[in-house]
Amino acid sequence: MTAFESLLAFQRQTEALSSIAERLGWDQETVMPRGATEQRAEEMAAIEGVLHERRTDPRISEWLDRAEARDEKEQRILELIGREHRRAARVPARLATELARQTSLSQGIWAEARANDAPDDFMPVLNDVLMLKREEAAALADGGDLYDALLEDYEPGATQAEIAALFDAMRPRLVALREDVLGADHQPQALSGHFAQETQLRLARTCATAFGYDWSRGRMDLAVHPFSSGRWQDSRITTRVVETDPFNCLYSTIHEVGHSSYELGIDDDYAFTPLGRGVSMGVHESQSRIYENQIGRGRALTSWLYQRMNDAFGGLSIADADAFYGTVNKVTPGFIRTEADEVQYNLHIMLRFDLERQLISGRLDTEDLVEAWNARFLNDFGVAVDRPANGVLQDVHWAVGLFGYFPTYALGNVYAGCLNAAMRGDLPDLDASLTKGAADPAVEWLRENVQRHGGLYAPRQLIELAIGGEVSEEPLLNYLETKFGEIYRL
Amino acid sequence: MTAFESLLAFQRQTEALSSIAERLGWDQETVMPRGATEQRAEEMAAIEGVLHERRTDPRISEWLDRAEARDEKEQRILELIGREHRRAARVPARLATELARQTSLSQGIWAEARANDAPDDFMPVLNDVLMLKREEAAALADGGDLYDALLEDYEPGATQAEIAALFDAMRPRLVALREDVLGADHQPQALSGHFAQETQLRLARTCATAFGYDWSRGRMDLAVHPFSSGRWQDSRITTRVVETDPFNCLYSTIHEVGHSSYELGIDDDYAFTPLGRGVSMGVHESQSRIYENQIGRGRALTSWLYQRMNDAFGGLSIADADAFYGTVNKVTPGFIRTEADEVQYNLHIMLRFDLERQLISGRLDTEDLVEAWNARFLNDFGVAVDRPANGVLQDVHWAVGLFGYFPTYALGNVYAGCLNAAMRGDLPDLDASLTKGAADPAVEWLRENVQRHGGLYAPRQLIELAIGGEVSEEPLLNYLETKFGEIYRL
Repeated sequence: MTAFESLLAFQRQTEALSSIAERLGWDQETVMPRGATEQRAEEMAAIEGVLHERRTDPRISEWLDRAEARDEKEQRILELIGREHRRAARVPARLATELARQTSLSQGIWAEARANDAPDDFMPVLNDVLMLKREEAAALADGGDLYDALLEDYEPGATQAEIAALFDAMRPRLVALREDVLGADHQPQALSGHFAQETQLRLARTCATAFGYDWSRGRMDLAVHPFSSGRWQDSRITTRVVETDPFNCLYSTIHEVGHSSYELGIDDDYAFTPLGRGVSMGVHESQSRIYENQIGRGRALTSWLYQRMNDAFGGLSIADADAFYGTVNKVTPGFIRTEADEVQYNLHIMLRFDLERQLISGRLDTEDLVEAWNARFLNDFGVAVDRPANGVLQDVHWAVGLFGYFPTYALGNVYAGCLNAAMRGDLPDLDASLTKGAADPAVEWLRENVQRHGGLYAPRQLIELAIGGEVSEEPLLNYLETKFGEIYRL
Repeated sequence: MTAFESLLAFQRQTEALSSIAERLGWDQETVMPRGATEQRAEEMAAIEGVLHERRTDPRISEWLDRAEARDEKEQRILELIGREHRRAARVPARLATELARQTSLSQGIWAEARANDAPDDFMPVLNDVLMLKREEAAALADGGDLYDALLEDYEPGATQAEIAALFDAMRPRLVALREDVLGADHQPQALSGHFAQETQLRLARTCATAFGYDWSRGRMDLAVHPFSSGRWQDSRITTRVVETDPFNCLYSTIHEVGHSSYELGIDDDYAFTPLGRGVSMGVHESQSRIYENQIGRGRALTSWLYQRMNDAFGGLSIADADAFYGTVNKVTPGFIRTEADEVQYNLHIMLRFDLERQLISGRLDTEDLVEAWNARFLNDFGVAVDRPANGVLQDVHWAVGLFGYFPTYALGNVYAGCLNAAMRGDLPDLDASLTKGAADPAVEWLRENVQRHGGLYAPRQLIELAIGGEVSEEPLLNYLETKFGEIYRL
């Protein structure tokens, strides 16, 4: 075997083991018995220990030194393995396994604290996680910026300075749009009623199928915080049900279908290589957000959904598809990020981005976090948080150590704005399909231009190849102003 | 750290990784998308590769040389780690991973072939598995007996000669009893009707609860072939449903509760040490079989079950609890081992034991297996197998490489016979509880005398400590002759 082949054979096993770790995470959040938390934490620590040992294996350096790439794919594989190897080498094994153990434990404690609205039960554990993440960030940063070092895990190449500048550019137009919308004379009708869990789940399956989800390589389960999990032949989605708000379930489902379809859409030849995973969380969120919003909350698709919901729930209180389009996109001063409309969503992200930068830099302690969250929320949204489950406890991310993840949602929205503009240019008749509940042309366009490439191109490069131009926040902001201007008759 | 502590810390991680591999197996047989077979085979191969590398790690020998045990528990831990180390060292890494990959793949192919009644689709794959198992057996046996080398994985210390002698001693009385029973004038009534899946599953949960299953550390799912999986804080059961035969679901459930309760009943201090698993499959089957039969199919428990089934299904066609006791224990010339009555069950095992010894020794080829099975079945049971799904395709074991496992069922029955006699002596009022659907006194007796010890004692030693005497087939045969003599009025 050549050095390249030896390296790739070794990497394939590492990829398989990392896929196992991800499957265990799925198990924990969906089907694991509640009494198994300590055991699972030990298991997660053990497999993370194995992964860390493999990623830091000294043979990788030797293989990398001797390996010769025959084309750009092999070149990229070497680059990605090298990056993973160098990053892992900076983190002590003890810290890597301790993080796996601690985040597995804290996930359950967060879920319980959220259910009981008891932030005091969670904050000490969050602090443990935060201290470990700061230690990890210091190890990874090697004298550089702590937050950037963590961001690199989710959006390789991005920096907090660049993201802060992007957010500064976006904020004024988003705030202005929100004020116009909330103050508009015309306000869309809200949906009211009781929507049975079974019916919601049946309809969620219908939506997933309409968005091309491959059920032979996936499944759908319930989770406290919806997520998708897995790659290649096995990428599963989760959803949740609120019986007064069916949009929560339906749009969570469509969002997760976007994530899973990205993984399932990657070229089969890349399976269990570093090319066989989504390239960044920003690109991942571009897929989930474009499925959910630009496609899923568009006029064409919602006209189909209006019929399906009428059939499923036996008559909605909304008069027609046009009114329903307004209902789906109604902007209200809500607390929950995952339920937020497209206008306010990025403002939720900016709040988290700023707070987590303070946590990582040490300018904010977890014991002051509830207060800091509530003050910032009141400032940004003009409403006081009513209870912790609607505030700082709403998201799972920090509990499981995902500091640096949140900004990728907003980056994903920006990418989705760019992709949507290019896709609509290429597919002028897309709405005719969407009106019939068939998202295939959009799904195929995204698979062809984004998903199939997996990790082959760097995130921004991938999007720029897909759209044939530069990434900018302009398409997203223009789209939002046009869409909500029309709905709110501004 | 002392050598003992270093070894134990290393072993704890190995145990955690082995628990992960078992959880992946559960996932594959219950919830995994059907398109994920190749991926799962790669994952199983990767984790088996890691396990093999750890079990053969040269540091284990060094630690074992230097480790000092302070008590019998530590002594036993060293003994079990040493045994695992020596066995793993005999098997090449390539073979260990190839077996994991091949048995993961063949499990799915078997399930499909069984569903389609198509043995030709399965036999080539079975042959691949068999060749690998023969290679493994040769490596493990190191010049000794191939079958004994495999048996050691399931029943340490047992030999095929000893089991063959046991079966020779049992067979005449079992055959005579079966002839008497099938020829008796009085024949219990069979159960007929249609029994809805949902109701069966609800009742199965009631039964599991009655047998003390700890739902906070377990769950129940459907599988083609019921099994239990996991240890410590997470031992899950599976069941299956045949809508014309509710006993299939109910007694499969109780059987698997026996297995899981054994694992969950082990002293918590032994978790993720070699003492923290059931000591052998024979002892495991003693628990599942005593739950299912001596307790579950006894007169007292069935009188409670009769009421529960009447309530659940709205009136059975059986007149009273006494008649129902006969119905539950009715002996019919059936094809399926897992549905077999207690009289014929061991005869099903003997057939498999003989055929698999021939397969492993090379005296029988997989291409002649269907014919050999059918001929032997006709000879032993006097009935021609009607279709392969009722013959050689009925069991998953060979597909997943479990050659040497089958005799442990019969050994488990013999152990269960011994345990039942001792338990009834200690608990003269047990039936009064069972009549009320409360198996706790029996469950507690078994936990105290068998389950909590985990791997501390060798299998036969454990049973002999529990019963205060020698293991013998007499109690089982006496119990069967008395029970069926009474039911059939012989």
